[in-house]
Amino acid sequence: MSATEQLLSQNNTYAEAFDRGDLAAPPALRIAIVACMDARLDPARMLGIEIGDAHVIRNAGGVITDDVIRSLAISQHHLGTEEIMLLHHTRCGMQTFTDDEFADTLQREAGERPPWSARAFEDLEEDVRDSMRRIRESPFLPRRDAVRGFVYEVETGRVREVS
Amino acid sequence: MSATEQLLSQNNTYAEAFDRGDLAAPPALRIAIVACMDARLDPARMLGIEIGDAHVIRNAGGVITDDVIRSLAISQHHLGTEEIMLLHHTRCGMQTFTDDEFADTLQREAGERPPWSARAFEDLEEDVRDSMRRIRESPFLPRRDAVRGFVYEVETGRVREVS
Repeated sequence: MSATEQLLSQNNTYAEAFDRGDLAAPPALRIAIVACMDARLDPARMLGIEIGDAHVIRNAGGVITDDVIRSLAISQHHLGTEEIMLLHHTRCGMQTFTDDEFADTLQREAGERPPWSARAFEDLEEDVRDSMRRIRESPFLPRRDAVRGFVYEVETGRVREVS
Repeated sequence: MSATEQLLSQNNTYAEAFDRGDLAAPPALRIAIVACMDARLDPARMLGIEIGDAHVIRNAGGVITDDVIRSLAISQHHLGTEEIMLLHHTRCGMQTFTDDEFADTLQREAGERPPWSARAFEDLEEDVRDSMRRIRESPFLPRRDAVRGFVYEVETGRVREVS
C-alpha cells in the first residue's frame, strides 16, 4: 500500500468522528505560524493549536520567501490575523548543504540550475533573526511588529525564543 | 495574554510529555504533503500523520509556487520522499477575490503593488489539476509522477480525490 493510500484510509477514520464542520475561515487566535516543513515538527500538536485557531505556513527551512509574504499578506488583509510566530528548529536539513551545492545537484541531475536559491543557512539563530527582519521590512504586511522568532528543539519538544 | 504567549504555555505541557527526541530527519512514510494554510485544516490530524512521518508544506491556497517546488526539490533530493499529496479545500478564501483585486488592495493600503500574484482561483478542482500539472512539468523533481490531488471538505472532514 502506498503512503497516500494509508493516509486516505486514516482520513476515513477521522471523517467518521468529525464534528467541526461549522467553523469560520478567520483564525480564532488571530495568529499565523511560519514553520519548517520538517517531519519532526507538528506545529498544531506542539503548540496545542485546535482546528480553526491559526494559519500555518510551512516550507523548507521556515524561511521568509516572497511566497510566505504573499500568504501572510492574505492572512492579515483578508482573514484578520495580527500576530506572527516563526519556527525554525534544531538539526535542520537546511544546514547540511549550501545554495551552490544544491544548485550543482540540480544541474547534474535535472540538467539545469533552478531560478531560485535553496535558501540554506549555517547559523540557526541568525536565520531566525533574518526572517524576523524580512517580515518587519515588508510593506505588504499591515501588522508587521507583532512577530516573534523561535527555535523548536527536536530533541526536547521545547520551543525557545530567539531575541 | 497574546496568542503567542498562550501557544508557548501550551508548548510547555507538550514538552513535559515529549519522548520522540530520537527521530531521524527523512520522513518515515517518504511522502510530502502540500496543503493550504487554512486554519480549518490540520493535515497531521486529518490524515493520521505521526511525528516523523511526512513533510508538510503549506501556503495560501496550497498552490504550486516556485517556493513549493524549492521545498519539494529539497524533500526529494535530500530527504528521500517519493510521493506527493496535494490538498486544497472547500470554502477556500482564495476563491473570494481576484489577483487584481488583491493587488489593488495592496496598492491602496501599502502604497505599492506586489511583485507577485495572489494566486487566487475560481474553480477548486481546476486549481488542483493545475497544481498537479505544475508538479509534473517541473524538471527539478526527480519523482514527479507519484502526485495525487485532493479536496478536503471542511464541512465533513473528508478528503476526496480530483482526477
